[in-house]
Formats: sequence, structure tokens, C-alpha cells
Amino acid sequence: MTTYASSGVDIKAGNQAIELMTDAVRSTYGPQVLAGIGAFGGLFDAGELLKTMHQPVLVASSDGIGTKVRLAARLGRYDSLGYDIVNHCLNDILVQGARPLFFLDYIATARLDPQNIATLVEGMAASCREAGCALLGGETAEMPGVYMPGEFDVAGTIIGAVDRGNILPRTDMHAGDLLIGLASSGAHTNGYSLIQKIFEQVSLHTIFPELGIPLADALLAPHRSYLHLLQPLINHTSSAIKGLAHITGGGLLENIPRVLLQGLGATIRVGSWRVPRLFQLIQQRGNVPTDEMHRVFNMGIGMVVIVAPENVRAIQDALGEETFVIGELIEGAQVLLSP
Amino acid sequence: MTTYASSGVDIKAGNQAIELMTDAVRSTYGPQVLAGIGAFGGLFDAGELLKTMHQPVLVASSDGIGTKVRLAARLGRYDSLGYDIVNHCLNDILVQGARPLFFLDYIATARLDPQNIATLVEGMAASCREAGCALLGGETAEMPGVYMPGEFDVAGTIIGAVDRGNILPRTDMHAGDLLIGLASSGAHTNGYSLIQKIFEQVSLHTIFPELGIPLADALLAPHRSYLHLLQPLINHTSSAIKGLAHITGGGLLENIPRVLLQGLGATIRVGSWRVPRLFQLIQQRGNVPTDEMHRVFNMGIGMVVIVAPENVRAIQDALGEETFVIGELIEGAQVLLSP
Repeated sequence: MTTYASSGVDIKAGNQAIELMTDAVRSTYGPQVLAGIGAFGGLFDAGELLKTMHQPVLVASSDGIGTKVRLAARLGRYDSLGYDIVNHCLNDILVQGARPLFFLDYIATARLDPQNIATLVEGMAASCREAGCALLGGETAEMPGVYMPGEFDVAGTIIGAVDRGNILPRTDMHAGDLLIGLASSGAHTNGYSLIQKIFEQVSLHTIFPELGIPLADALLAPHRSYLHLLQPLINHTSSAIKGLAHITGGGLLENIPRVLLQGLGATIRVGSWRVPRLFQLIQQRGNVPTDEMHRVFNMGIGMVVIVAPENVRAIQDALGEETFVIGELIEGAQVLLSP
Repeated sequence: MTTYASSGVDIKAGNQAIELMTDAVRSTYGPQVLAGIGAFGGLFDAGELLKTMHQPVLVASSDGIGTKVRLAARLGRYDSLGYDIVNHCLNDILVQGARPLFFLDYIATARLDPQNIATLVEGMAASCREAGCALLGGETAEMPGVYMPGEFDVAGTIIGAVDRGNILPRTDMHAGDLLIGLASSGAHTNGYSLIQKIFEQVSLHTIFPELGIPLADALLAPHRSYLHLLQPLINHTSSAIKGLAHITGGGLLENIPRVLLQGLGATIRVGSWRVPRLFQLIQQRGNVPTDEMHRVFNMGIGMVVIVAPENVRAIQDALGEETFVIGELIEGAQVLLSP
């Protein structure tokens, strides 16, 4: 028994969806999940884990994936959205230094299609499995009259833990510390209202020469998780990482300030990394000013790592993939683009 | 700084909503909430609490409040829905024996109205405060094209904790144990699609003589929380309470089985409690068969307490309000209505 529940008019469809997803959900259960005891809430035995921490702090985040869901509904493709919501949430608590414990989801729609719901949850389960995170429960709601016909929404909540001494950002940030950018896998889960407006008249199956793949594939590329890349480099007292910023809605310009200590700003050097062609295409077709592009999209940088200059090389080596020094911390409160 | 975030087209409206709700959200913070450290995830220092437990188990539940949101949208009344979602979640983990630690919400709509969102979140905050639960974070999403104009949805996730030895239901349930029913405050958050169908042609301001108050008031009565009533009676080794069932969608017939050990069923004696007039009105106007009424609505019983016959009197006295012995556990897997 899982703690999934379904509500709505078509009880049969809800139960069928739950049946279809049960194996996938169960595959995320480690020994901490106390399954089958009761079905109203999910049970996670955190005793052993929390004992390994000096002062355990729970870290939680709820999020949605915005209007990327509309694109998926239009295309009838539900497989990658599970990665989107889980990975978005994983990154949100990773930037506070937390490792994930468990995830819960909420899916609502005008009319339940059991197979689509199951496909969506299977994606979540796969992403949870990769992250070592239990998919502890969820709710599927059928709400005619609230959702537009054919549309649906998906939200998720993640709970993780971090030892209080390892919480990020750290307090020893200074002007002069450098920003290392990690590549995103696409637009992740932000800017999709603008994207859909710009490509309204275009078939999603179009292969633009700049992209070389169908537009749909480029746009539905799942949100990247930085958990396995960054987890080994944080959570120990000698970690050189002072802070992490997950680049979501608001882009570099609005997400970097979220983790800076008071009195610190940053300059971002445009041109210090390759902006992926998808964003060039969006900007060109939508005639979007560069500043707005940087407030709506991640522009190719999905995560920013803050380190002292003397540690940049070692961190870049340890990351083991192409990364970019995209700017530095400055005195003052502003985050600015510089040429 | 709270960990509320907003996404969508109208960034200004989102920020305004967050500004309006900040004081209410902050009023739920106890010393465990580490505010202002970072804004991607909410931080809850569980160290002290978990140390008081032998084997701490985290209990989590995600839920929505169904199409009751449509009624609220139609009436422009957002004040009681916050209680609905929080109390629904509180009850869902209470039936596993858990006390709440923190809550996170997700609100999405076609077009953000900052004042309505703030009113909704203020209700959540008030309910969280009463429960001693932190409103740790949330996400407000503007999703045109996904939601019908004027409509919105609200979901919530609650995290609580229980000592492993105190998890409910207990394993010493037997045929012959009795079911004590606690009164609901109305339809809570279930059956609202059917309700709205039945009253489609009726003004929500109608005062039916059976109700004596406007239909809108009867239908928007907030979901009752049983936390303060039941918390003192559970969570200790000598507790006489063997199990609790939160009566949500599916009614008594489908929620009681969720907490019964294998091989046990129950008989519910119709007539052993007064079915509130609201449900009589619904049944009469909608010509709904009694069995269906019991599968859709709580019929006046929002929580069921399972106790051995010899402890019924003591538990009823301790509860200190009118309660009803509504049935008993039987051998077999069925839950049946009996005259």
C-alpha cells in the first residue's frame, strides 16, 4: 500500500491511476519508509539518519513547474515532467546544503487520464530513485471547472536534512569571491509562458537548423538535477563552497541575490559562457531585450557556485565537467550584467 | 524574509501578494524556524524535538481541498479556505499519531489577485498558529491557459513527527472494538462537485429553512481540526485509542477500512447519530441514494476513534463534547451500513 490518494468525480479512473503507478512508487522506498502501516500519511523513519547529525535541520520546499505543463499537455508527453518537478525541488534544498529524504506530489486536472498520471508519476519515481529520495505520497485530484479541458497542473514538496553547521550559504562570503556557472539542460522550468507566446504560430515538431532537433524535444528537456555533482563537495567543514544559487524564474539577476549576505552584490560577465542556441532562437524570434532574457531564463546556467578565487581551480577540477567563471561578488546590493 | 516564492507572468502581483502575507506567515514562526538564512527552502531545526523521541518518525501528507475552491471563487470568499487545507492535512497525520511541525502550500490560478491570495494565506497562517505548526513556505503560481478564468487551486503539504512506538493505528485491534464518531463541522472538503451540481440553479445566498443560514455559509464552513481534542489522548503508552480514521472523500465506508488491520471490517449503525440537516437537504434535492451519500460525504462524522468497549465511557468523558458510538469492528473485510 502506498499513501497515494485520489479524489474527484471519477473514482474508478483515480484508483486505476494509483494501481498503474504503485510499482514505480514502491521502487523508491528504502528501509526508512514504513509502508503498509497506515495510508493517511507517509511514514519516514528518520531516526538513524538524524542521529548522524550534530544538530539536524529539516529543509523543505514546495514548487510547481509553471506553464511547461501546457506544452506537455499539448504534445501528450508526460514522461519528462516528473524529472522536472523532482529535480527542481532537489536543487532548491541542495542550495541550503540539504540532502533529500522524501518527496510528495500533487497532480490536478479537469479529467483524470490514468495512463498519463501514471506516466507522470513514473518519471517522478525514476528521478527520486536516482536521488536516493523516497516518493512518500501524493494526491491526484479531478477538478472539472477549475482546470481548462485537457490541461493539468503538478506541484511537489521535498523534505531534506542538513546539519546546522553545514547550512549554505556560509557567512564568510566576500567581495572578490568568484561565481562558477554550471550548465543547464535547457530552459528547465522557467519562461514557458513567454516561450509559448513566441512559438504560438509554430509547429512544435519544427526542426530549426540552430537546434537540429524538434522544437518540442528542446523545450521538454527535463530540468537538470545538480545533486550528485555537488553533494560530494558540500556538507563537510573543509568545503570550499560558500554558497549555491539555483537559477529559476528571475534568472541570474534575481536568484543570485537570494543567497548573498547583506551588503554584497555581483557582476555577471555576459560572454563568459556560451548561451545555448535555444535561448538565441527565443530572443531572436521574440525580439526580447537581453536584460529581459536574463530575468526570465537561466540563459544556459542552471546553478551558480560561490567560491574564493584561490579555490576556483580545485572546485572546477572536482566538478569534472565544463564550467564557467561567470562573474564575481562586489560591494553593494546590486547584481549587474557587465559586457 | 519568508521562503514564499511566486512565479508567473505578473511578477509585480506575485511580489505584492507575498508582501501582504508576510506578517501572517511570520506569526507562525517559533524558535525552530531559522528565518532569513536563505530563501530557496524553509529551515526547521528539529533537533530538540526529535531528541525527546525514542525513535522519531516523520509523517507527511499532501492534499488539496477539491472543488470547494470553485465555490469560494464564485463567492469571492477566500478567508476560510486556509483553515480547510491546513486542518485537512493536520487530521491526516493526526490519525497516524503525529503532531505537526510545519506546513507548505501551493496556490495556482489563471491570474493572480494579490489580496485574495493574501487572504487565503492569512487563513492558513491562523490555522497553523492554532495548531502550533509553522507555515514554512509556499509557492504561488500564475498559470494562464491552465486554470479557467477566475478559478484557482490550493494544495498543501504537512510534515509532522511521531515516536515509532506511538504510531497509530495500533496492532491490538479486535472484533468488538467500538467506533466513536466525532462531529464534523459540515461537508469539510469532500463532495463539492456533487453539491455544486445539485445547487447549480440555486442562489448561494438562499436561506433554506432547514439550515437557517445562507447556503453559502453552510457550504463554506471550514474543515474541522481534531488536533487539540485528540492530541492529549494519544501519544502515550497507556492511551486507550487504538486507531483514528479521518473521514474524507469516500466517507465512513471507505475511510474506516484504511486503518483496520487485515481481517477486520466494521458495521456502521445508521441512526446512531444525527445526520446534519445540510446532508438531508443535499440528499433530498439531489435525490441521492443513501449508500452514495455515505460514499461521498462524511454525513456529520469527521473523525472516528477506535477503542475497546471497556474504555468507551472514559474516552467519551475525556473528549468532553457530544460524541456517538456509531458501530463496531467485526471479523471479515467489509465495512457495512446497518439499520
